[in-house]
Amino acid sequence: MIVPPIAASEGPKPGVTSSRIPIRVRFAETDLMGIVHHASYLIYVEEARVEYLLRRGANYADWAARGVHFPVIDARVRYRTAAAFPDRLEVECWVGEATRVSVRFDYRILRGDTVIAEAYTTLACVDHTRVPKRVPPDVLAVLSSPEKPEKVAPAENST
Amino acid sequence: MIVPPIAASEGPKPGVTSSRIPIRVRFAETDLMGIVHHASYLIYVEEARVEYLLRRGANYADWAARGVHFPVIDARVRYRTAAAFPDRLEVECWVGEATRVSVRFDYRILRGDTVIAEAYTTLACVDHTRVPKRVPPDVLAVLSSPEKPEKVAPAENST
Amino acid sequence: MIVPPIAASEGPKPGVTSSRIPIRVRFAETDLMGIVHHASYLIYVEEARVEYLLRRGANYADWAARGVHFPVIDARVRYRTAAAFPDRLEVECWVGEATRVSVRFDYRILRGDTVIAEAYTTLACVDHTRVPKRVPPDVLAVLSSPEKPEKVAPAENST
Amino acid sequence: MIVPPIAASEGPKPGVTSSRIPIRVRFAETDLMGIVHHASYLIYVEEARVEYLLRRGANYADWAARGVHFPVIDARVRYRTAAAFPDRLEVECWVGEATRVSVRFDYRILRGDTVIAEAYTTLACVDHTRVPKRVPPDVLAVLSSPEKPEKVAPAENST
Repeated sequence: MIVPPIAASEGPKPGVTSSRIPIRVRFAETDLMGIVHHASYLIYVEEARVEYLLRRGANYADWAARGVHFPVIDARVRYRTAAAFPDRLEVECWVGEATRVSVRFDYRILRGDTVIAEAYTTLACVDHTRVPKRVPPDVLAVLSSPEKPEKVAPAENST
Repeated sequence: MIVPPIAASEGPKPGVTSSRIPIRVRFAETDLMGIVHHASYLIYVEEARVEYLLRRGANYADWAARGVHFPVIDARVRYRTAAAFPDRLEVECWVGEATRVSVRFDYRILRGDTVIAEAYTTLACVDHTRVPKRVPPDVLAVLSSPEKPEKVAPAENST
Repeated sequence: MIVPPIAASEGPKPGVTSSRIPIRVRFAETDLMGIVHHASYLIYVEEARVEYLLRRGANYADWAARGVHFPVIDARVRYRTAAAFPDRLEVECWVGEATRVSVRFDYRILRGDTVIAEAYTTLACVDHTRVPKRVPPDVLAVLSSPEKPEKVAPAENST
Repeated sequence: MIVPPIAASEGPKPGVTSSRIPIRVRFAETDLMGIVHHASYLIYVEEARVEYLLRRGANYADWAARGVHFPVIDARVRYRTAAAFPDRLEVECWVGEATRVSVRFDYRILRGDTVIAEAYTTLACVDHTRVPKRVPPDVLAVLSSPEKPEKVAPAENST
């Protein structure tokens, strides 16, 4: 697929095929136009992607130890309206497409029912030396599983 | 007071004279040493300060409309040990000192019981033209009040 | 045009239809994978866009005073290979497309002859209230003019 | 020394005992108050420190390979006046103090002759496992040497 669709409309299911992650807009993320700086959204969707994976039991340290890394190779954000400080946002995140060697995450950034932005990021699966490799079956299983409710605790200490 | 003490030991009380704000370490906040970059802590304590104020009913838009601004004029962080991705941290935040024209917030960044860092930031009260002004009595009252429990909802939409 | 091409090959001319802006990779812009974090590239291309405009005599303060703003409405980055600390990069920047109400800037991020990434950002022309407006003729003239050599001084004090 | 002085007045000599590094204020570094966000200054002084070292022949990769790391253990910034976009600033950087196991860098952030802020950062010398170690003699020699003019080329490709 050459040009991935932005935020396909078929409808991800929160907690099952998608996750909704709360984001507090930080003062430092605003710019002199008085709104959230556009580069902040890549940080927001990265935080959403991480939470999506943690809620499904992903173990970053284990993946890294096994030489399974997921650098971003393509990213796009379409900005619909502005977010401001101190908005409470949500990022809805789901797997839009998975190939043998890459995964595309799709996102909607929301303030209540208002779509602030839509985005996707495509991640390649690579080894320690950045050579592409197949997404391991257990990693693929994590990606396509529903949330594990016990992992959602907001202030849990991970170490 | 020329040199404010870092994280005075007299003991703030969570929810009353202090607040504890959860922080998720973001992947983007790490650096090539594999730990949280030291500049990220100023962002963490700013987020804590904002939450401290919001939980006490502070209305940023109203303050700005009245010409009440609080730029940071002094900031210090002492780093005790490193935080890493994807740690869950907490920032404990309290008012260490208030003068007629400034407020010093003190902070402890914690991972469980481990003190990751201690910090303070001193904020001046200024008007639209950055001329110092007295901290208004109602603002001072907000600073010294306990948390309003109903304002703590984590995913509340502020707009 | 629905899907803008990334880094069209027709060949911008440095100093005339394009500008080349040096970027020093900052330690803080790296992440725990030891490379430049992918969100940093949106900052790099923004710095390049600003320099492109300043080298052609753009006056941001004047534009803002006249109610001419250019928020980013679409951004895409395709990552070819990783940059690292302390690389010296260059961003080549040119206007890929201009319509009555928007401008698309295209970019190549380079380390020597190596293409690190390609990107574009589309900016809408809006007024103070974020209502779309026509790009003023004098602004369009700035966009399509060559660099003014006397504006390139690297450490010039702008105020 | 318990409380290091901020920006001691004895007078560093640019190019010899100090370096002056140009900084372009980025749009993304501003906040909704219309000025440079206070956390950006820790990034500016880090960039200055890196340039100070590179201009004296420091080889980060070699240091890291030998297990010589310099995490920041204390940082302070005092803000005198605001910087704005698109200011051209300079950071003057020098070694304020060196002990057997740590180095304190002092900084002045300048816009022309105006002091925007003063700062220091104290770095500990540690090994791979973050255990303190003595600053190696050759590293200390780099710290106390004058700039090597041939290393100042602004767009040099480091790799």
